[in-house]
Amino acid sequence: MANPTQGRNIQTDSTKDRVYLDHNATTPLHPEVRSRLLEWADDWGNPSSIHQEGRGPKARMREARDSIAKILGAHPLELIFTAGGSESNNLVLKSIQTFANEPKRHILLSSLEHPSLKRAAEAMARAGFDVELIRAHRSGVIDLEDLEAKLRPGQTALVSVMLANNETGVIQPLSEIVRMAKAAGARVHTDAVQALGKVPVNVRDLGVDYASFAGHKFYALKGAGVLYVAKGAPLEPLIYGGGQERHRRGGTENVLAIASLGYMASKAGEITERAAEMARLRDRFEAEVLSSIADVSINGAGEKRLPSTSSLLIPGTDGETMLMALDMEGFAVSTGAACSSGSPEPSPVLLAMGLTRAEAQCSLRVGVGWGTTDSDIDRFVLTLKKVVDRLRGLKGYKVGQLKRPEESSCLT
Amino acid sequence: MANPTQGRNIQTDSTKDRVYLDHNATTPLHPEVRSRLLEWADDWGNPSSIHQEGRGPKARMREARDSIAKILGAHPLELIFTAGGSESNNLVLKSIQTFANEPKRHILLSSLEHPSLKRAAEAMARAGFDVELIRAHRSGVIDLEDLEAKLRPGQTALVSVMLANNETGVIQPLSEIVRMAKAAGARVHTDAVQALGKVPVNVRDLGVDYASFAGHKFYALKGAGVLYVAKGAPLEPLIYGGGQERHRRGGTENVLAIASLGYMASKAGEITERAAEMARLRDRFEAEVLSSIADVSINGAGEKRLPSTSSLLIPGTDGETMLMALDMEGFAVSTGAACSSGSPEPSPVLLAMGLTRAEAQCSLRVGVGWGTTDSDIDRFVLTLKKVVDRLRGLKGYKVGQLKRPEESSCLT
Repeated sequence: MANPTQGRNIQTDSTKDRVYLDHNATTPLHPEVRSRLLEWADDWGNPSSIHQEGRGPKARMREARDSIAKILGAHPLELIFTAGGSESNNLVLKSIQTFANEPKRHILLSSLEHPSLKRAAEAMARAGFDVELIRAHRSGVIDLEDLEAKLRPGQTALVSVMLANNETGVIQPLSEIVRMAKAAGARVHTDAVQALGKVPVNVRDLGVDYASFAGHKFYALKGAGVLYVAKGAPLEPLIYGGGQERHRRGGTENVLAIASLGYMASKAGEITERAAEMARLRDRFEAEVLSSIADVSINGAGEKRLPSTSSLLIPGTDGETMLMALDMEGFAVSTGAACSSGSPEPSPVLLAMGLTRAEAQCSLRVGVGWGTTDSDIDRFVLTLKKVVDRLRGLKGYKVGQLKRPEESSCLT
Repeated sequence: MANPTQGRNIQTDSTKDRVYLDHNATTPLHPEVRSRLLEWADDWGNPSSIHQEGRGPKARMREARDSIAKILGAHPLELIFTAGGSESNNLVLKSIQTFANEPKRHILLSSLEHPSLKRAAEAMARAGFDVELIRAHRSGVIDLEDLEAKLRPGQTALVSVMLANNETGVIQPLSEIVRMAKAAGARVHTDAVQALGKVPVNVRDLGVDYASFAGHKFYALKGAGVLYVAKGAPLEPLIYGGGQERHRRGGTENVLAIASLGYMASKAGEITERAAEMARLRDRFEAEVLSSIADVSINGAGEKRLPSTSSLLIPGTDGETMLMALDMEGFAVSTGAACSSGSPEPSPVLLAMGLTRAEAQCSLRVGVGWGTTDSDIDRFVLTLKKVVDRLRGLKGYKVGQLKRPEESSCLT
């Protein structure tokens, strides 16, 4: 089969015998980033230093900020560099905590959010804020009627809903959410970490006040994130320090990681083409899985999704066991967010969508990337089928025993 | 002149024609770190992933944690990886803010602390904490009598005093401070960012509850810091998130920067020898400056200092102007903390020591490093003398007009 990505595979040598399908957890370094690392690392000065050793890194940061602002549709000064998506998310909640006027002590968070937001919101609840979760449909889309019902005009300080979910890839109806939240006088934050590099993201078009991004989901180094803060939106530092980031985020900047993210931003023109190719591979993958493995369903199917992500529900199996068997066969996938790996608890995202614990426990997340090939998909489908058949045999699962999704159980 | 460091110069190629004497702001990458960067970067997986791509980075993190724990005299689980020194400092204050029981709402901070602590403490004061500063002597040592007088047994939650000052290099009497604070029931934090790599640091011997470190002051990459939290000391996350760092610091770990810090920790056996060589160079530098440039004094001279740092007070000059003139001649130095560069305000550290604004404005910080050579010092002293003579000529400064330090003024 023709392979349009041949020669552009971005997996590094260390994984050439492996098929990496966990791009939602983190992405390999783009080879052009890798090939520039040492050159960037040689600008090791402190960007706050006013001598020559400081000016090189400072220029790299300015260039990166400009590139990122350009692809996001933001002004460069509306961007704050952080250490990653979790810090960006925490920074938004900290800002609301500080600036929210009484009686604006109400926060609405979708039930599908990343732990960095959910746990930061729990801390705010302990500090006296009124935090509520917006319900989600089984389709993976948040329930707009529930949002409407829970919004308290003049009291809700913040509504936070991710742009695309990290487990299902489902894209949330942000423009509708922004419209409703603004009408109630609330600020809006979106965690866009999973969307960056997979679909074009324009913060101005989205109309949000805050948006979080992370480089390591976009083929750049770990250690660099961005928080977009619309001009005029309240902001209180999470990390106080020197005058960095216009006194909005203290700490010597991670210039190397920032440069790598800036470089990837400069390649954002490729995103539309890359997205089309990922969508083709992902759709082919899903079609082949659905036709070759019985009783499988796709969480979020039918909704607008990222072009890269499949969340499979495979009754008669167990996610963790599949993950480990596939790993031994040379394939990297996951059962949900990497940061919750090893936890015996099933995915909170899938539970929030209304899946049973049993269903969530037999789910598998597959994420293609810029380097995925047709051959990767072919090999993966064959191996997945083998693993599923073996597991179902062990568990005595009878194909076709499930009539409707809501009857499904993974532990039969 | 013999050069014992020949062949071990750790400055990178890009600076070979320059003399970098601003190691307090940041250090060049150690060449052995640089040569391993790509190998480490190829472990790009998410260390929380349980498949093979996650296990490599996870092993690198474990190795780094063990190496760092070993040199610091800590248990590996007493270390939390952060993005740097500022985050570590903020994390301590956040922890005290959350855990301090009424009436333990009193915090004592030395007046010499880094802005990341001072500004975080100001935020705590706004939140209702009672924050007081401990005075410093003109020598650069904190005033232990003032500490004794301000300690409130049973009420003081935290005493924070840096191990070595970032501008003068003066080492604070930590064991005395710990003894006094513990007697009053207070926890003790030390910002040891400047000490790491310059003198051996053992947190157990120091007896502190918390200690902050940063890799980029120790020839490692920017983006990795450490907070030591003694077993049993309160800790509340600053960045909530996934289960990383045992739920103490959320966010995908910056494995590359952490690996580089771990590598440097494994070279800590060299520190004693390196310190002796830096002390020799620094002492020779100071002796030559004092003998060749009139009316110069050394801030903190006579006190126990880091082997690497000189804070010069040069009447009849202006720090910023010297910095820029020296930069043009190929030498990188600073007037104080890099993160405050460009600020028209004189160094808060020197002001806290009781220097006048005029004195602080004619101070210059010179920091030698592992790669500094005798030839660097020779060339720097000659150029500094030339620059000082020129500036003094322009200002009409008359050598010898100062009889006592307290009379000195830089703007005469």
